[in-house]
Amino acid sequence: MGVKSDYRFRHRHIFGMEQLSEPDIQHVIATARSFREISARSIKKVPTLRGKTIVNLFFEPSTRTRTSFEIAAKRMSADTFNIAASTSSATKGETLVDTARNIEAMSPDIIVVRHSCSGAPQLLARHIAASIINAGDGAHEHPSQGLLDIMTILDHKKELAGLKIAIIGDIAHSRVAVSDIIGFSKLGAKVCVAGPATFIPAAVERLGARVCHAVEDAIDGADVVMALRIQKERQNDPLIPSLREYATYFGVNRRRLEQAKPDVLVMHPGPINRGVELSPDVADGASSVILEQVRNGVAVRMALLYLVMGGEKSDDGQGGV
Amino acid sequence: MGVKSDYRFRHRHIFGMEQLSEPDIQHVIATARSFREISARSIKKVPTLRGKTIVNLFFEPSTRTRTSFEIAAKRMSADTFNIAASTSSATKGETLVDTARNIEAMSPDIIVVRHSCSGAPQLLARHIAASIINAGDGAHEHPSQGLLDIMTILDHKKELAGLKIAIIGDIAHSRVAVSDIIGFSKLGAKVCVAGPATFIPAAVERLGARVCHAVEDAIDGADVVMALRIQKERQNDPLIPSLREYATYFGVNRRRLEQAKPDVLVMHPGPINRGVELSPDVADGASSVILEQVRNGVAVRMALLYLVMGGEKSDDGQGGV
Amino acid sequence: MGVKSDYRFRHRHIFGMEQLSEPDIQHVIATARSFREISARSIKKVPTLRGKTIVNLFFEPSTRTRTSFEIAAKRMSADTFNIAASTSSATKGETLVDTARNIEAMSPDIIVVRHSCSGAPQLLARHIAASIINAGDGAHEHPSQGLLDIMTILDHKKELAGLKIAIIGDIAHSRVAVSDIIGFSKLGAKVCVAGPATFIPAAVERLGARVCHAVEDAIDGADVVMALRIQKERQNDPLIPSLREYATYFGVNRRRLEQAKPDVLVMHPGPINRGVELSPDVADGASSVILEQVRNGVAVRMALLYLVMGGEKSDDGQGGV
Repeated sequence: MGVKSDYRFRHRHIFGMEQLSEPDIQHVIATARSFREISARSIKKVPTLRGKTIVNLFFEPSTRTRTSFEIAAKRMSADTFNIAASTSSATKGETLVDTARNIEAMSPDIIVVRHSCSGAPQLLARHIAASIINAGDGAHEHPSQGLLDIMTILDHKKELAGLKIAIIGDIAHSRVAVSDIIGFSKLGAKVCVAGPATFIPAAVERLGARVCHAVEDAIDGADVVMALRIQKERQNDPLIPSLREYATYFGVNRRRLEQAKPDVLVMHPGPINRGVELSPDVADGASSVILEQVRNGVAVRMALLYLVMGGEKSDDGQGGV
Repeated sequence: MGVKSDYRFRHRHIFGMEQLSEPDIQHVIATARSFREISARSIKKVPTLRGKTIVNLFFEPSTRTRTSFEIAAKRMSADTFNIAASTSSATKGETLVDTARNIEAMSPDIIVVRHSCSGAPQLLARHIAASIINAGDGAHEHPSQGLLDIMTILDHKKELAGLKIAIIGDIAHSRVAVSDIIGFSKLGAKVCVAGPATFIPAAVERLGARVCHAVEDAIDGADVVMALRIQKERQNDPLIPSLREYATYFGVNRRRLEQAKPDVLVMHPGPINRGVELSPDVADGASSVILEQVRNGVAVRMALLYLVMGGEKSDDGQGGV
Repeated sequence: MGVKSDYRFRHRHIFGMEQLSEPDIQHVIATARSFREISARSIKKVPTLRGKTIVNLFFEPSTRTRTSFEIAAKRMSADTFNIAASTSSATKGETLVDTARNIEAMSPDIIVVRHSCSGAPQLLARHIAASIINAGDGAHEHPSQGLLDIMTILDHKKELAGLKIAIIGDIAHSRVAVSDIIGFSKLGAKVCVAGPATFIPAAVERLGARVCHAVEDAIDGADVVMALRIQKERQNDPLIPSLREYATYFGVNRRRLEQAKPDVLVMHPGPINRGVELSPDVADGASSVILEQVRNGVAVRMALLYLVMGGEKSDDGQGGV
């Protein structure tokens, strides 16, 4: 696994890539790989988390992340409960902590939380006993996405060290970008970001990324090109180019991709705005590993649910599964 | 079963009654009958589809069809996931095929899909590996409804061959009508349709139905009277009569039903607008088999989920269950 | 248990505290106590209701009551189905009874129903075969809340007989208040209600409560203080004080609580409007048992689901579990 024998995964909560060491990241991915084959079986279910209660507490709507966690949980036989903010008592004036304490009183083992405020998962963890997994907090972090992105790259490249990874788009509003930059950098990759100037925060260099003036510079010689999603909802904002302008100046298309390495991987956290961030031929092309990202997402989430519950995989990868 | 011993159900997808042969239809119903008794047991659960992942992907809201599929799936121990279009990334500009490919990457075995576009299920099946079951596509087909209607009639009549079946109402906008007309005709019934002229498309005769000028002509001597639901949502359309006019001229009431056979079956796909399509005494009367339709719906959907996964029932109806 | 040996719980439906005898209430709570420890186990699941179908039919939104019933059901291995009115065919003009009959045709064992009309659960029970549990009907009753409140008090006090219990707030619109007043009175407590005059219905004395002129009178010497939730949605009503006025004149704060017994229990059915019905220091203070109420809610609902299915616990509290 590349993890020393005296290594132990010691995190009860997953707040972000920030907290994970390189051995932690490698251990999550090794665990995820051993879980990945479960989803390829005829009977896609193991008893690992039988009798555990997992609450998906989503204050922002998300079909794909929520479904990915729900599938991960049920494949390990946990009981899952979806609580959406729009139907929750959040609208009745209850505070986040009150909501969480009330959920806690129902004895969940894990709360997977998405919230529009950065730091909401840490706030919950200070007040309740269940394990917390951050499924996206404001523009802060989205660690399961960062981990599945690393797993997907490592399926194709021997290691991240020495790779050039370009991240293109709305860095400023993207928790995916933050988790990716932190994670990729920890494993030794060089990360270059590019996008409209209003989308590139000054602080990004402190995370370990280099800001490129032009998309072409970021893609030049890249081993991985990650295109981020444009929030169409923000189209009224005068600071943001129109979708057509964006596609013209920042979209990843066949021509721009020719400057990358021949074995470049094209990635996107989804859902794709086809013809905006990615041209359709690139999205569906031989370099695209976008659907592998989704597949690995279930495996990474199985691993996180398992590990925060204290699971330890034996060396043959079968223990406890 | 009335099915020859060398018969095999060979469909991996269920798009419509159009694709099913008479032996297919008989086999689905024989399978559904063997599953029906499970719902009458104290422990309503068999391990048939344990570890299978079934996604209900509904781009149009539907409590009853979705719940019926969900109950069918859970009674066979499958894991089910409900994805509603209103909360899905469909609203984020993702195409249907992108949505489906992303779901596919999570390794579902079956996707049950409802969509406002005719042909959406076939489109999905061309792009992804999971089995597809059409739970209603535009005004095209709703095959599980067609099958449960046939099952319900066969519970009371020896065969469909030779029966006169009247279908009353909004034929033009009804996928139920299409699936019923195709299925009933394949099994040898004579189908007569009647309703407001603006509700009767010219093409209906090509499906095998005869158009009657008046409701009375359709009901005269009928063995089965199927009333379709009026979409109240369409009440602003000037082509459509008011609900009161509809009830007066096209509603199935006691007086009109006297012209049918004495052992006529009254059916409706639900939900009923009481006092519009059916008078309350007819809806709740001795001839009504409307709740049997709902009951058979769960059994037919269990059979479809089972059969698209390659199930084969042994002759005693117990195999694999 | 304080229940005679020839006692049997004979209710197939739970409509309200009104129908339950004192031995019934004691039996539900004894059963709930034996179930409570399941939620504290590492594997929170027993096979008690395996293969049972439980439908949560909610015509009014409720995250916490619905989730509490859903967790209770899944901890006993039942299959649960959530049907929300906003997505149900209720909006398509179907009557409540039609909706219920259609659900019944899918063979549920228990329907947990919340509806804005008083008496809806009884109406359902007259027309369908499944057991009905009232999860709140109009301003009538909310019996599982009444039972969990009694359970919580009995965890701290030897018996209810002789206790003084103050209920503060919007008595007129509160089904919690009704179930509490009936239940507390049956077990011998003296209940005093207080609140804005427009919130105190004349009929409350017929339920067994005494109306106090001032909050201070109700709290004076109380063993339990139950604060009810103010419906912020009603803030446009001129009969209702503003939230600030309410907090000033009727809010339970440290100063007012000093008039209660030293070992007073502070309760609230949740969700709390902090700073309105309860000051934050009181809500989170040593006297507060609000989260115990939530915890006991799961146990009481497990007991109710179990008992309406005909379960009988053996004397050691282990039978059937």
